[in-house]
Amino acid sequence: MPNVKKLQHLDQRLVQTEAQLQVLQKISRLMARKLSLLQVLQAIVEIVMGATEADACLIYLHEADDLVLCASNTPHPAQIGKLRLKMGEGLTGWVAKERRMLAIGQQAYKDPRFRFFHDLPEDTFEAFLSVPVISRDTVVGVINVQHRQPRRHMGGEMEMLITVGEQVGCIIVLACIGETADALISPVKALLSSPPIPPAKKPD
Amino acid sequence: MPNVKKLQHLDQRLVQTEAQLQVLQKISRLMARKLSLLQVLQAIVEIVMGATEADACLIYLHEADDLVLCASNTPHPAQIGKLRLKMGEGLTGWVAKERRMLAIGQQAYKDPRFRFFHDLPEDTFEAFLSVPVISRDTVVGVINVQHRQPRRHMGGEMEMLITVGEQVGCIIVLACIGETADALISPVKALLSSPPIPPAKKPD
Repeated sequence: MPNVKKLQHLDQRLVQTEAQLQVLQKISRLMARKLSLLQVLQAIVEIVMGATEADACLIYLHEADDLVLCASNTPHPAQIGKLRLKMGEGLTGWVAKERRMLAIGQQAYKDPRFRFFHDLPEDTFEAFLSVPVISRDTVVGVINVQHRQPRRHMGGEMEMLITVGEQVGCIIVLACIGETADALISPVKALLSSPPIPPAKKPD
Repeated sequence: MPNVKKLQHLDQRLVQTEAQLQVLQKISRLMARKLSLLQVLQAIVEIVMGATEADACLIYLHEADDLVLCASNTPHPAQIGKLRLKMGEGLTGWVAKERRMLAIGQQAYKDPRFRFFHDLPEDTFEAFLSVPVISRDTVVGVINVQHRQPRRHMGGEMEMLITVGEQVGCIIVLACIGETADALISPVKALLSSPPIPPAKKPD
């Protein structure tokens, strides 16, 4: 009987771990492809929606001192590329400014940091999970995952989304600068201008 | 008794899946940091060495029509940034030109594509596993993993290395262009200039 319980436990862990791995593998396939920013963002939204069973996924990108709504699972043609928040403004702005994940299981709209800005229907949803998108130590955006109903966010889900936030920063930056990047690459020049580092340590 | 076998099997799969996940998580941590190209390459070498128990890991980067040796687990100060192969030349050049993984379990030096070029001690090793490093549909380099002794490369190891090759392309390109990237980013401009795509499909 203990074996049966252990089997169930192992099986559950394996399912979760494989699901996380699959998300990261899907993102790495994205990285290898030459996509426009629009395509990249749409693909990230789809991957995140699939992995979290969310009702909404919104991606804001950082431009100047603003966060600009750049992608969403439901079309918001009037807001995409136009809806702007200041850094620190609302829950999304808090995540970008603090560079920290935010997980609110219910009544996210009652959080003191919350403010209604732009009549997005997602603003009435109960559960709010949000991570900064980071590239080379700079916050380049925020990914919001929202559920209509209250939700207990699980550790694995949060960990996965943090990793996604770390992974997609580079793709987003490269998609933004697009073709320009190719002309700039000279690995040897970059290598020779790198500051020296201590010799490689033995791996753990 | 079948349960015991099933437990062992599940346990083994879990260990392998967790190991793969950890490699990708380590790489995503790398992506979030602002590192020089030298630091990025050194970190990738360490992660790959740890994950494959290899005797050697070499990274070549693409510049003009050449592949340039840019990182290695053992110091090759005379060759780093200098040793050059043409695309298609030797096993490494074959991987870059064909954009395909190459796995040779033993006597890699007897492969007809092999050629001694530059007196690297790694050229005498038995097992050779190599993947292209890809960013936005372009081969930007090659990662070679070599073992002194013959080795049966496992599916999970090969799959993991392919994913690593897809993941690190973006970091390498961004580290090459360094600070220049920051000034070029305007997500809204990039978004508006993206060619239109069909509306997002429902995730599977």
